[in-house]
Amino acid sequence: MPSTQLTFADRAAHRAWLAAQSSLPAGFRVGRASFDFTPREAPKPARMNLTVIALDQPTPAFAALFTRNAFPGAPVIIGRTRLAEPSLGAIVINNKISNVCAPDGVATAERVCAAAAAQLGLSPRQVLPSSTGVIGWALPEEAMIAALPAAVGALAPGSVLPAAEGIVTTDLYPKVRRADVGGGSIVGIAKGAGMIEPNLATMLVYILTDIAVPRAELRQMLARAADASFNAISIDSDTSTSDTVVALSSGRVPFADWGAFERALHQVCRDLAEDVVRNGEGIRHVIRVTVREAASPALARALGKAVVNGPLFKCAVAGNDPNVGRLIQAIGKHVGAHAPGTDLSGLRASLGGIEIFSGGVFRLNPEKEAALVAHLRSAELYASQVGPDGVFSAPIDFPPHERAVELEIALGNGAASATVLGGDLTHEYVSENADYRS
Amino acid sequence: MPSTQLTFADRAAHRAWLAAQSSLPAGFRVGRASFDFTPREAPKPARMNLTVIALDQPTPAFAALFTRNAFPGAPVIIGRTRLAEPSLGAIVINNKISNVCAPDGVATAERVCAAAAAQLGLSPRQVLPSSTGVIGWALPEEAMIAALPAAVGALAPGSVLPAAEGIVTTDLYPKVRRADVGGGSIVGIAKGAGMIEPNLATMLVYILTDIAVPRAELRQMLARAADASFNAISIDSDTSTSDTVVALSSGRVPFADWGAFERALHQVCRDLAEDVVRNGEGIRHVIRVTVREAASPALARALGKAVVNGPLFKCAVAGNDPNVGRLIQAIGKHVGAHAPGTDLSGLRASLGGIEIFSGGVFRLNPEKEAALVAHLRSAELYASQVGPDGVFSAPIDFPPHERAVELEIALGNGAASATVLGGDLTHEYVSENADYRS
Repeated sequence: MPSTQLTFADRAAHRAWLAAQSSLPAGFRVGRASFDFTPREAPKPARMNLTVIALDQPTPAFAALFTRNAFPGAPVIIGRTRLAEPSLGAIVINNKISNVCAPDGVATAERVCAAAAAQLGLSPRQVLPSSTGVIGWALPEEAMIAALPAAVGALAPGSVLPAAEGIVTTDLYPKVRRADVGGGSIVGIAKGAGMIEPNLATMLVYILTDIAVPRAELRQMLARAADASFNAISIDSDTSTSDTVVALSSGRVPFADWGAFERALHQVCRDLAEDVVRNGEGIRHVIRVTVREAASPALARALGKAVVNGPLFKCAVAGNDPNVGRLIQAIGKHVGAHAPGTDLSGLRASLGGIEIFSGGVFRLNPEKEAALVAHLRSAELYASQVGPDGVFSAPIDFPPHERAVELEIALGNGAASATVLGGDLTHEYVSENADYRS
Repeated sequence: MPSTQLTFADRAAHRAWLAAQSSLPAGFRVGRASFDFTPREAPKPARMNLTVIALDQPTPAFAALFTRNAFPGAPVIIGRTRLAEPSLGAIVINNKISNVCAPDGVATAERVCAAAAAQLGLSPRQVLPSSTGVIGWALPEEAMIAALPAAVGALAPGSVLPAAEGIVTTDLYPKVRRADVGGGSIVGIAKGAGMIEPNLATMLVYILTDIAVPRAELRQMLARAADASFNAISIDSDTSTSDTVVALSSGRVPFADWGAFERALHQVCRDLAEDVVRNGEGIRHVIRVTVREAASPALARALGKAVVNGPLFKCAVAGNDPNVGRLIQAIGKHVGAHAPGTDLSGLRASLGGIEIFSGGVFRLNPEKEAALVAHLRSAELYASQVGPDGVFSAPIDFPPHERAVELEIALGNGAASATVLGGDLTHEYVSENADYRS
């Protein structure tokens, strides 16, 4: 479950809350710079943010998880090798171009790291590169290196917000979550907003803490926290080539209660994961599916994913249409294809707390229909509205509430459970992605 | 490959071609009736077509394939038992409500079959029920039985078109394909248009022939033909609870050349499968993916499906945007999740015959970009246009051409291949499905 149930009346209220979340743990500084450039593959002007997260001292206590996509980006290829380095001192992040399968992509990223290292007094291998954006294009290396002095010059302690704002692409608003624990803090930022069904790791997430957690423990705890949070979400079933979750400890605050730290880390990861879904491309309803009484945790999670990835059910939710037939269809499709023989005769399902299916048949009537519609409407983030030329875009740049479409599915044949978060499929998603590069 | 490369200037040209396709094989009659009713779960007026396909004499030579969805509809449950019957005399098909997991659904369908049998001079178990439409609602039993005399009274030889028109739901036009072989013919009709990623069988397809093919051979040949056609398409990755493919032989034309018959059957199935995709919900571009040099046919097909089911790539195609990064992402997602360790270093990919990827990197430049856009535009079926209130609907009720977005992927590590058909993800799909029941 999320740790908050917030509502925001307007952008200003959300930004004030974000600012309060954003206080940097001791030992970190962030800075960023922006510049215009022209991609060489498709010459149209674009603007790139270059964000730097720097430690005051390089730290051995860092952890990172990367995508399982078989075409990982150059930063992921490099990042995997950085895990063996004795210490890390900075992360250099760009948006707009993800540096995936681009000619000379790894060497380009290494040269950017080397240029950053020179300015930060680090060795090149103490710098982790990170990129998000269009797949297949090459980084504008010269322009990035030219912008580095401005980003490094802007480095400042105080707030992580410049980084949270710098890493966005199609996100509607920055995402920051924190937990204060044991005299220190954990602060995480995340970048969504599409191509998100993480497999092991997810999108771009950076978690900073001043609590002194040794490298080995930090890596174990991050893997567990990511599995329970980022690996349980899907916006569009597309696993990115760039998914990355990084955790850094500056080690400034001695701490012994690892249980408390891990609980706080889980909270930050779960909250950020829900933020990523809530601000997923085109999402107007968050859908939370809890599957109980399953034979295995894997089946419970897979069924939850099958529900939130079923395009017809997602469209029904977008239209506030309680077409629960599509829900049962999605469950039956997954079981028929991947777990044939599973006994579904005891399946019970509810939507918004209202029973819709049990004993092998639907339990529907006009009164329930009206109540189901009301539940869907209550979880809507904003009303869809078409602009000139048929383009739909979200009219908000803050999350008005944290409600979700709540689905409960009890399989009746086991003790395992899982909760999965996803969203609806909307005109806004199509508008966003049918001409994202245009 | 499809057996035709047709273009149609307008609806009249398409309907004239359909009429020529529709000549019924000897020994069959079709009839239909329509009526208004009110579903009891969500009281809004609706109109149902009741279609009857009847043999002049019951035949032992029938075959049927059904969905693997774990929540099959009542007609599928009944249909599986009919396979053991000595003969079949008629099919009764309704649209609007699919009779899936509805209370008393199997008994209701059996009572409709019994009523039809009484009027046709058959035993109830010689009638196959078939339904498509909303999942979860109950059939309007009394109204259906009341409409049966009109449908049976309309039975006529000559044309299959009344049945092809009667079974549609969200289809834009009826689908009929034929092959003339050995002095007889094979005529197939299909109903799409959403919830389509068949698993073993697909949507509703009825194939009628007067060629005398014994039951066992007909069943084997239908299974092979469906695997190479309906099982190689996906409109939205959603496997229906009602997918059904039925083949009936009236046995009127003696025939010995089973090879020729099977080739003709494959052709009809492939052509119908492509028709189903071309008229898939919201589809403005058909996407044909051929995967070659794969280690296994299963991997080749799965990769093709991963490409045509990747929502981001589908959206890019909708926008005539050659965002081939999303293509590589979709391949990498599937391999990373389901075939890790597969060597992709030799992968080559082309779009519209233009090389876009080889040697581990993209091969892009502004000239190719323009040529790729032109290829996408040439495969577009119609331009998207928004109506009042932001609703998008297809402005055509015929297929203007049979062109497709042509993707070739060579994996370089095997000899297996597969071709998969899918389509783009459009505003029209969202409009269709965000308020399909409204």
